[in-house]
Amino acid sequence: MDLKELAAAEAVKYVEDGMVVGLGSGSTASIAIRLIGDKVKGEGLEILGVPTSTASDLLGRAVGIKVVDLDDHPTVDLTIDGADEVDPKLNLIKGLGGALVREKIVAAASSVVIIVADDSKLVDYLGQKAPLPVEVVRFSHKTTTRRLSALGCRPVLRMVDNAPFTTDNGNYILDCRFARIDGPAAMESTINNIPGVVDNGLFVGRANKAMIASKNGVRIME
Amino acid sequence: MDLKELAAAEAVKYVEDGMVVGLGSGSTASIAIRLIGDKVKGEGLEILGVPTSTASDLLGRAVGIKVVDLDDHPTVDLTIDGADEVDPKLNLIKGLGGALVREKIVAAASSVVIIVADDSKLVDYLGQKAPLPVEVVRFSHKTTTRRLSALGCRPVLRMVDNAPFTTDNGNYILDCRFARIDGPAAMESTINNIPGVVDNGLFVGRANKAMIASKNGVRIME
Repeated sequence: MDLKELAAAEAVKYVEDGMVVGLGSGSTASIAIRLIGDKVKGEGLEILGVPTSTASDLLGRAVGIKVVDLDDHPTVDLTIDGADEVDPKLNLIKGLGGALVREKIVAAASSVVIIVADDSKLVDYLGQKAPLPVEVVRFSHKTTTRRLSALGCRPVLRMVDNAPFTTDNGNYILDCRFARIDGPAAMESTINNIPGVVDNGLFVGRANKAMIASKNGVRIME
Repeated sequence: MDLKELAAAEAVKYVEDGMVVGLGSGSTASIAIRLIGDKVKGEGLEILGVPTSTASDLLGRAVGIKVVDLDDHPTVDLTIDGADEVDPKLNLIKGLGGALVREKIVAAASSVVIIVADDSKLVDYLGQKAPLPVEVVRFSHKTTTRRLSALGCRPVLRMVDNAPFTTDNGNYILDCRFARIDGPAAMESTINNIPGVVDNGLFVGRANKAMIASKNGVRIME
């Protein structure tokens, strides 16, 4: 069993009959979705899945989860999602998969958020390994880039196949490389107040637990 | 001369040869754009216009202003724009025209912002007459609506021809009726940190002057 699967399996133990479950995005969260599908079939559970991206929507349906809209089921009991960085206080950087806005909307609507990751995602401070993804409207995105640079980071417009990557919401992503992010709560708010910014990948105080898999097993952080 | 034209004419006096000028959106700002066009032709000025909406882009070109992209001219010398409410400290509610995000991006890039309005837009406190427009991504907008309601307002999805109104950025607008908005700076930030919110119509500390026309003439607030 690889590390991602180990972490995902530990989190899926928390899925219970009758729950509304947030379906995360990214490679580890996708493994969790497959395991949730197995559990639904194997144990005959009735759960509803709220997707955080077009990809998790499709995968959830493919593995037999009844996928519903958050607007019709506004209280999510449990969301299982991945992260790009996890700091010792369970603050996160997310969004390398490009679904940060929807992931944050679903996380904010969730009673419990469990993060699944392997130990390569553990950091001493946010910004140590990953750039911070910031979703911005297309209009004047170079101006927004300059404004983000003034915070001390190096923003790069995310590209795919020689064209700007476009989110499910039709926006661009600027991957902002910081030396380190001190005070992530203040930084999250400062960035969100820059005109043109839709949201950013800092998730502060939103995760309740993290299942961190290493070759020594799964460590549960809370 | 009607009041809107009176206010616009007073602001256009500040337009000088060689300037990069932000072209606002809405009825009074549109009059200003026409008057800028007249001034460019009449006095042979060379100015560049940065539009804040598709509408101001088209109107600017139609009246003979050389329209450019903010990203190519990141420092705007002067922006002339309208407002839905102006309080005694020159804090504003904007966005009834649906262009608040672009207007705020251009305002943030402007050395000087002059607001043009008739005296019906003057209020003792923000929220007195106008709802606060909030631009939100379409995904789970009902969930975002509920979250905004928790701030004590009554949000209504803006409609046009029986369908949700869509902004230039492809998003929806929730018009949020507050009894009154105390602490607009904190409220602006709080709303922008709700997941799913792109930006809101509170413009705090962004206007340098306001030309307020009444039947007694134009009052210049600064």
